[in-house]
Amino acid sequence: LYSEIVMDHFQNPRNVGEIKDADGVGEAGNPRCGDIMKIYIKVENDHIVDIKFKTFGCASAIASSSMATELVMGKTIEEAWNITNSAVAKALDGLPPIKMHCSVLAEEAIHGAINDYRRRQ
Amino acid sequence: LYSEIVMDHFQNPRNVGEIKDADGVGEAGNPRCGDIMKIYIKVENDHIVDIKFKTFGCASAIASSSMATELVMGKTIEEAWNITNSAVAKALDGLPPIKMHCSVLAEEAIHGAINDYRRRQ
Ligand code: FES
Repeated sequence: LYSEIVMDHFQNPRNVGEIKDADGVGEAGNPRCGDIMKIYIKVENDHIVDIKFKTFGCASAIASSSMATELVMGKTIEEAWNITNSAVAKALDGLPPIKMHCSVLAEEAIHGAINDYRRRQ
Repeated sequence: LYSEIVMDHFQNPRNVGEIKDADGVGEAGNPRCGDIMKIYIKVENDHIVDIKFKTFGCASAIASSSMATELVMGKTIEEAWNITNSAVAKALDGLPPIKMHCSVLAEEAIHGAINDYRRRQ
């Protein structure tokens, strides 16, 4: 059902937690299952220098967020904005079609965190 | 958002795994989120003497299944059949309304396992 990369990121998720003095915080909710995702970013010179996530979502949500944070880390704000949930799913070696909605959570929460960062400037 | 009992069962879920020589196996899928739950039971003298579950579902699904397996353990087949997802949610000190659908997974998978056991007799 799940690729080896999904299982790895589900069992050893990267960048879990929160950033107390974050420069931007984003939250996204999934209307389909009711799960919530929170993303915290630290920004320096227009680059994302730290990112963490928190969720009580399912295995696919955890793996997608873990992979998304890895893809976003070190990128410029604009590059980070353009990382889609399809790119995350591809980096995970695919997700079951019925679980694609879980990967959208990470993308939306990252956009929320970037918007929050921009608002604060 | 979540009660202390939910957090405890989510972080230290009871009876996770599978039973190789199970007397009954049940599977349930959640159309709302696409998550799947599997329940394995061992039966002796009409009593459930062992029960294990496996899921990639969310925190609420894990906590509900963990609590459900504890409530079912040692019960007669009939008593186990009558343990509803509302009873499980009550034992958890409540679930957010939007997450009640997750607790249904455990009830359905337990019913599936009992039906499978009966078919094999
Ligand atoms: S959201 Fe899928 S089981 Fe909870």
